[in-house]
Order: sequence, then C-alpha cells, then structure tokens
Amino acid sequence: MTKGAIVSRDEDFPRWYQEVVARAEMADNGPVRGTMVIRPWGYGIWELLQAELDRRIKEAGAENAYFPLFIPESFLSLEAEHVEGFSPELAVVTHAGGKKLEEPVVVRPTSETVINHFFAKWIQSHRDLPLLVNQWANVVRWELRPRLFLRTTEFLWQEGHTAHAKEDEARAYALLILRDVYRATMVDVAALPVLTGHKTARERFAGATRTWTCEGMMGDGKALQMGTSHELGQNFSRAFGITYTNAEGVLDHVWQTSWGASTRLIGALVMGQGDDFGLRLPPALAPVQVVVLMIKEEPAVRAAAEALVTELRAGGHRVRLDDRTETSFGRRSVDWELKGVPVRVEIGPRDLAEGRVTVVTRHIRQKENLDLRAVGVAVGPILSRVGPELLEEATKARQERTVDVDTLEEAIEAGANGFARIRTGALGSDGEDRLAAHALSIRCLQRPDGGLAEDDGADDGADDGADLIAVVGRSY
Amino acid sequence: MTKGAIVSRDEDFPRWYQEVVARAEMADNGPVRGTMVIRPWGYGIWELLQAELDRRIKEAGAENAYFPLFIPESFLSLEAEHVEGFSPELAVVTHAGGKKLEEPVVVRPTSETVINHFFAKWIQSHRDLPLLVNQWANVVRWELRPRLFLRTTEFLWQEGHTAHAKEDEARAYALLILRDVYRATMVDVAALPVLTGHKTARERFAGATRTWTCEGMMGDGKALQMGTSHELGQNFSRAFGITYTNAEGVLDHVWQTSWGASTRLIGALVMGQGDDFGLRLPPALAPVQVVVLMIKEEPAVRAAAEALVTELRAGGHRVRLDDRTETSFGRRSVDWELKGVPVRVEIGPRDLAEGRVTVVTRHIRQKENLDLRAVGVAVGPILSRVGPELLEEATKARQERTVDVDTLEEAIEAGANGFARIRTGALGSDGEDRLAAHALSIRCLQRPDGGLAEDDGADDGADDGADLIAVVGRSY
Repeated sequence: MTKGAIVSRDEDFPRWYQEVVARAEMADNGPVRGTMVIRPWGYGIWELLQAELDRRIKEAGAENAYFPLFIPESFLSLEAEHVEGFSPELAVVTHAGGKKLEEPVVVRPTSETVINHFFAKWIQSHRDLPLLVNQWANVVRWELRPRLFLRTTEFLWQEGHTAHAKEDEARAYALLILRDVYRATMVDVAALPVLTGHKTARERFAGATRTWTCEGMMGDGKALQMGTSHELGQNFSRAFGITYTNAEGVLDHVWQTSWGASTRLIGALVMGQGDDFGLRLPPALAPVQVVVLMIKEEPAVRAAAEALVTELRAGGHRVRLDDRTETSFGRRSVDWELKGVPVRVEIGPRDLAEGRVTVVTRHIRQKENLDLRAVGVAVGPILSRVGPELLEEATKARQERTVDVDTLEEAIEAGANGFARIRTGALGSDGEDRLAAHALSIRCLQRPDGGLAEDDGADDGADDGADLIAVVGRSY
Repeated sequence: MTKGAIVSRDEDFPRWYQEVVARAEMADNGPVRGTMVIRPWGYGIWELLQAELDRRIKEAGAENAYFPLFIPESFLSLEAEHVEGFSPELAVVTHAGGKKLEEPVVVRPTSETVINHFFAKWIQSHRDLPLLVNQWANVVRWELRPRLFLRTTEFLWQEGHTAHAKEDEARAYALLILRDVYRATMVDVAALPVLTGHKTARERFAGATRTWTCEGMMGDGKALQMGTSHELGQNFSRAFGITYTNAEGVLDHVWQTSWGASTRLIGALVMGQGDDFGLRLPPALAPVQVVVLMIKEEPAVRAAAEALVTELRAGGHRVRLDDRTETSFGRRSVDWELKGVPVRVEIGPRDLAEGRVTVVTRHIRQKENLDLRAVGVAVGPILSRVGPELLEEATKARQERTVDVDTLEEAIEAGANGFARIRTGALGSDGEDRLAAHALSIRCLQRPDGGLAEDDGADDGADDGADLIAVVGRSY
C-alpha cells in the first residue's frame, strides 16, 4: 500500500529507492548505459559530503592532486591481480584526434597504476616519505547491472594513495583513514552506523594485502560497502619500482595504502535514512536545512516569510524560501518531504493572523503550531536533534536485524534478513562458497567485541582465525 | 643570462615557463601524450581558484550538477557547427566491458550536447526558466601541441549552461558571468588585468552566436584567452528540441548561454605574474601565504618559529613551517621563491640572539630585518599590498605594450610585441586573413573606451562595425 506519494519500502524496496531518487530530483540515468546525471539536489548533498571528507583527509596530512583520466593499457598489466580484477570492466579509447592510436588507452577504473608510476619518480629518499596524496575524480567501470549512485559505469569519488617507509606505518595510516575519515564522516555527519572490519581474501581489492571496510545496513537489511581502505603491502612498489634509500643508505621498496569513498554514499543516505515519504537528511548534509513555505501570496505572508528567512540565515542555517504559490501547497509539501529537508515552516494567512505558523520536523513528521516569534529560536534545537535521532533509529534497526549464530546453516537463514555474526572457526573451509550459493557473503571480519583485528598479519591465514567473527549478509 | 635558479624570461620565455612549472612542482606531463599531472602545489592553487569562482557562480544563481563523461557519438552531430568544431579533437571509446560497443561513445570535449538533451526533458513551462546549471568536470580535446596548463588533452574546468525565456535575458546572464564571475576573479583575486570584449565570427565558440571573452597579456606580450561566456541563441534549443510554454500558452524555443574557465588560469598566473625567480602568487591564491623557515635546528630557533606559526595562523593566514634543516637554507629559500609564497620569514640563531628575524616580501624581493615581536603584526599589511601591487605592475606592463594604430600594417608590426588597437573599419575585408598570415589574430572587439559592445545584435554584421576597436595580438 502506498502511504505517501511513492511506493512503501515494505512493498517494493528497489522501486521505492528508484522513486525517491527520481522524485527528489537527485539523479537521472545518462544516455550511455550505466552513466548517471547527478541533479542539483543530489549534487548539493555530494558537495557537503565532499567538504566533510576533504577536511578530514587534509587533517590526516594528505594533499590533493590530480592525475590523468587516461592510462596506457600496458600500465594496467604491471600488477597481476590488479589487471585480473579490473580488465573486464575497462572502457578503452582506441581512436583520438581522428586517428587510430598506436597504443590504446584505458579510462581509469582507479588510479593505482598511474599514480605509482609517478611515485617511482618522486620518491628517492626516506625524506620523501611518507608521501600522502589524494584526488577527487571520476572513474569508469563498465557495469552490466547499473543502479543510480550504487553501481554506475562512471562515478565520482576520492582516492587516496600513500607510500611509507615501514609496513606498520602503512597499516596505521590505512586505519587512520578508516576510522577518522570514513567512519567519522559516516557516523557523525551522515548519521549512518557502520561496522568496521577487514575483508576476506575473496572480497579484497585486486592488488591489496588487506582491505579494511565500513559496512552499513540499509533499510531492507542488506549490506552496503561504504568506504574501503587498503593495505597494498609492496605489491605495487615492486611492480612499479618505487624504492627509497633509508637512513642507513640501504635501498628498500615502500609500503603503500589506497582508499576510496564515492557517490555511492548518497545511495547509502537514501537507503539508510529514507522512510515511506522519501529521503530524510541529517542537517549536516542537507543543501537546504529549513524551507520556509508561503502557503499563499499575500503581503503579510511574504513579509513574515522573508523576515524569517533572514533571521534563520543570520543564525547560520541554510534556508530556502518557497514562494512558488502558483503550485499547490500540498504538492510542494510532499516535494520537500521527498527531498528530506529537516525542517519545514509553513506560513499561511489564517494562522498568521493569530501570529502563528506550522513547523514540521521531517524525520519524525511532527507538526507543531508555534508562535511566529519563537520559530527563529526553536529551529536550532530541532536541527540538533535530527542527526542523533536518525543515528539511534538506524542503530536500533540494525541491532534488531543482527543475530549471533553458531552454524553456517543458521547464518544462511539469518543472513537472508539482516546480518548474522558467526565465529570464523564455524565457517568451514568451503563456507564462503556455500554462502555465495545463497547470495550471501562475509561483509567483514571483526573481533568478537566488534573491534578491528589490527594485530593480525596481513597474510591470508589470519582471515580464518577461529577467534574472529564473520559478519554475513546480502549485499548491494 | 640566468639570474635565478632558472633561465630568465627575456632569454627564453617558453623555457622559463616550463622550468617554473617543473621546479615549483606544479605539474608534470602524463604518460599519455598531452595529459597532465597536477601536483599538490598546482592543485592547491586550483582549489583556491575553484572556491573563488564557485562562490561567485552560486551568487549568480547557478546550481552545481554533474553530467556524464561519455556522450553518444550521435549527440555531437545534432548541432552542425558544434560537430565541425570539435570532431578533430575527439577521443572515442569503441570497446568496453570486454566487447566492441554497438555505438561508439565520445569522451566529452564540452557538455552542451548531453546537458541540452536533459534540458529538453526538464523544461516544460516558463516556470522552469531560467534554468541555471554549472558543473566542475574534466574534459578531453586531443591536442597535437600540448603545453602544461595552457593546452592539454585533458583539463579541469567549470562549464555553465543556462536556458532563458528571452534573448535579452540570455545576453544579460552571459555578461553577468563575464563580469561578476570571470573578470572579478581574474582582477580582484588573481591580480591579472584582463580586457573584455567579444570574438569575431572566426574566433567564436562552435555553435555560439556570440562569444564574450576575458583576454590577458602574458609576460612575453602574447594574449591568453582566460575565460569565455557564450550566447548560443536558439542553436542548441532547436537542435535538441528545448521548448517551453510561455505565460500566454504559446510554445517557444529557449535562449541559451554556456561559459567556462579552466586550469589554464594556473598557466595565466605563472605567465602573468612570474618573474625571473619563479612564480609570484597573490595571497588569495597562495596555498601557503607565509613560510616560516628555520635556518638551523636549535631549540631557541624551533621555539620562536613554532610560536610565530601559531600566532600567524591565529591571525587567519595560511602558514607553513619549514623545518627541513637537513636541506641547505639557500636551496630552501630558492624553492619557496620559485613557488611564489608571498612572505618568507627566516629565523636563524645569530639574528634571534638579538631578537630579530628576516622577512622577505616575495613580489618585490625586499628583505627586512625586523624585531621578532613585530612580525606577527607586520605580515597582514604586507600581504594586503601584494595583490594591488601585482595588478598595478601587470596593468602598467600591458599599457606599455599596447599601441593605438590606424592601419593593418601598423597592427601587424605592433601586434608582434603586444597588443595593437585598431578600428574595425580599418581592417578591410581580408584583415583577419592577413593577420593570420603573421600569426596574429583579433583577440576581442571592444568599444573605443574599452567597454563591451553590448547593444549590438548577435549577428555577424555587427562584428565589422566601424565604430568598434579590434585588439590584435599573438596568442597562446
């Protein structure tokens, strides 16, 4: 049954997602299969997310740079696992400037190869380390089953690439990014709880020795990988010849990391925070935090609305005046709900005659009739509630759908509806295959207390250690 | 003769440019011909430029969005002049996902076609107008004679695209962008004087009815086109079927603009502000505004340097501590000069014993011996001087190389060394051909007082009006 202007989540979650993205004017499908147009409402969210991530990346010491979109095809094949992982998804330019190219160039699916080509030039001595670089860029991975924001042929992301003198420094940096950049942004800014852990060998990034991940649970109980931070060991430094002279004058290969988060996070916001009436935005990621909606075009209404907009902007909030009174009030209310604007103030002539307006708090759909003079002061505390309450709600929903199990059979049953936590020792040697047969996978490995298994070596053996917990679920 | 660490501008301007870009660690050539790596110093300048442009674009009412990198080949051919202009420069993806594509896709050289495809969907009524969209993106134009920042196969830019109900509204918006976004950023932020005017039909953007331009004069007297704002008339709206119902219920095609500025502006900063010792950055675009340089690693030196860094940061300046005392002081001074950091504070044990430090103002290379306690207060006023003084110097240099002439022969002589201003009536019908034979072109058309010829129609005839001035020069 349709409660709002869109299908309900329970009835058809994938269709609900599509309808929210379309009706909130967040994105459209591009003309080339799998590509995406990010419309101003979606892009406004992305700009806020970018700023939050970028600030934390810079605090972690990395500097932004930009590397080319086009990579010689030969570069890709230098790291064996990497080329195997990405070859099927590559887009290849064979003609340019009116001629056939002597060597085809690939459109970057990720930039390890071209960046490490330059790291080999720039790094000579231990004084050049650590080298910490990040870039904001578009990347292309040909997708057969595209889905707006979640899986698109072209997407926007940041990718960090670093080189360190020692293995433990590389690991510490990969974890710093995981915790202080990714988890912090997801939890503190996007109000989305995430599990952190590392991937099994099967789920690892092509070319990494260890992949650390943030995994969120979406509104349908499925997992979404929201950001990953990889230890690359010396795989790329050996393939690309990135060496440095240490303080003792001895030549060694650097230890590396890479890490990325993308426009997929916008999909996570929709699926993790949305309700049957559309998107619900935490104020930190809301392009408009308060919309002041004029019900009718009348001088008193306009005067009150404009004064309130000025007052709220002076209070540091992002505010929009909706004076499109030629469109029905109901239609506009529904649209702002769909777009997830945290607070809506409705000003109409009847209430205003009594000095009152209606304030709607979007995430709980609570309507209050307030004295107009009190609204300017009331909005701040309402906005402060939204993030923590969304986080609490999502955390509770995840807990309700997470089960501790003892056997693989139980994991298969519980994983169909949410997350199953199982000791890695109980998985058996063919556990991942058997999970895969049920469209399930190990989303991450953790310590029993949910902590990161930091002290294990990066070698495969540790992944199967009986003392770890595997979080099993369906995934996007 | 080499004055600094690099060749002098007079001796070999192109080599000087290359050396500044390389030695200041701004950019490198990419592995695929014509592509570019923008290193952190260059990218830091770009981030500041982006922020300045972005703020002004938003103030002009445009919203950011993102459109796909890949465009179906067939889209390009819909507007005849556009395809003719861009075809020779296209990069074409013929294979993807391991297969040959049924229809090849081009990598966007600019996004008029794909954006207008969506404008046709989004625009129905006069209520949807004006539609004002901007995107920050990479674009690709295959270059045979690439040059870092100035002309690269891939470059970063913003491109704005708008649709309006009336022709005069479109023109007013194109001019708003030219003046309040581009010229304001170039003059007030980059301290680069620019001439504004419109292009002749020969120099116009492929598909535009009029191209407005900002033209700067570089240190060698050559012109650089630094930003353009186009009136597109109804060329694209007819090709893509972008119609709207006006208030009277009648269907009409929209009137459009597009406008762009790119990483070429970084090249303009180098060539417009640099001297024989490297780059000179206006503080608004300096990733580091003040570098505090420890001459020796001694406790007193470090304590003084760190305290000063803290004090200057508290004053709102971007400050870096250079404590790399394992590298010679001279080498580091030269490097910071090359990078163009506006103010350098040198702290060494000998001076410090007397409570004094050396403050170097980069753009005039002036050294002052100041009381350490006075530096924190002295830096603000020094930084305030830099922009206006650079602008004054560049304006004076341009004036000295600009000549009013009466005949084409004189324009050819004067244009070889700077700008020649000539009445369009004196050009003759083959004037542009004759200029081209001397590697000269008309950079822009202006009113005799330097103002924009706003009231002329967008038709070709007006370009040749005898009452306009043609600015003739060599160009990048």
